[in-house]
Amino acid sequence: MAATGTSADRTKRADAVRNIEAIIDAATRTLAVNPDASVNEIARAADVGRVTLYGHFDSRATLIREVVDRAIAQTDEALARLDFDGDPRDALGRLLEATWHLTHRFGAIVVAASQVLPAEQMRRAHDGPAARVRRLLERGRTTGRFRDDVPIDWQISLIQAIVHGASSAAHRGEITADVAPVLVRDAVLAAIST
Amino acid sequence: MAATGTSADRTKRADAVRNIEAIIDAATRTLAVNPDASVNEIARAADVGRVTLYGHFDSRATLIREVVDRAIAQTDEALARLDFDGDPRDALGRLLEATWHLTHRFGAIVVAASQVLPAEQMRRAHDGPAARVRRLLERGRTTGRFRDDVPIDWQISLIQAIVHGASSAAHRGEITADVAPVLVRDAVLAAIST
Repeated sequence: MAATGTSADRTKRADAVRNIEAIIDAATRTLAVNPDASVNEIARAADVGRVTLYGHFDSRATLIREVVDRAIAQTDEALARLDFDGDPRDALGRLLEATWHLTHRFGAIVVAASQVLPAEQMRRAHDGPAARVRRLLERGRTTGRFRDDVPIDWQISLIQAIVHGASSAAHRGEITADVAPVLVRDAVLAAIST
Repeated sequence: MAATGTSADRTKRADAVRNIEAIIDAATRTLAVNPDASVNEIARAADVGRVTLYGHFDSRATLIREVVDRAIAQTDEALARLDFDGDPRDALGRLLEATWHLTHRFGAIVVAASQVLPAEQMRRAHDGPAARVRRLLERGRTTGRFRDDVPIDWQISLIQAIVHGASSAAHRGEITADVAPVLVRDAVLAAIST
């Protein structure tokens, strides 16, 4: 299709863009609640037909890959806006709060993604946030605010485990989404501070 | 088949029992390393043919269910032998060390199981260990050794998340299996102690 064209062409392209956005939004919402949501359920939530959906995404896996890519991009953007200066413990507290909200918002998408994406790709999805956490940990270890007698990789894994654990606990209703960020911050700071 | 019979019958039954044990052992070893191990790989590791394996287990899912049942039974037995008396922090330290070794031994079986068993069944697999942790936490909260200003369910989820996180980190080679139990104990006690 040429980049320009008749008015009818332009309308068709605008419809396609709108449908694609609606499908990705619906997939994000639906999969965040139910990782096993079918293509039919996603199409219904997007208010488009199955045929339209498959016209834009050749498989459920392709759609999930797109959802995950967007989720990672949004996470990176949100974290990039944070203030990482000042006391490393306060900065880590801010980072944890933001990370928790994002992890919780994307919820079961992690489960859906881990069923269709290779483990290596799942690992890479966390590289961006992990790099930010690492820089902050390095600064806190140097300035004596964080323990430096345990591997930094372990501290990063510990933080991921605690954030994901809190998200699962919130989805199961064991803790409320209100208190979760505080619980996460307290647990992490207790575990890694000097 | 009758419970008694000719000598040839008894030999056949003994062979069947031996094959079943060999298959379950091989499945446990193989799946602990590779959650995607196929029935063929498991049969090879057990030194039995595919037909023999399918004669005893009608599907890969049935075999995994049996592996998980045994893993849970072994975990319960190992934990039941522990001393839960004395200072709750020390007792929790012993419990965590044992739990870590078991979680690490069964490794990727958790991943394999979560792909074929419903979430509810996976949850139930943790009910036994979780009940022991809960009793210990309750005692430590009452005696003022553990924080009682956060939900006890959160403390249980936190412990599970940290143990599983350590197991993944050890499988990825970020921490060694030698230091992992100490790292787990330190992180948990720091996060939940008063």
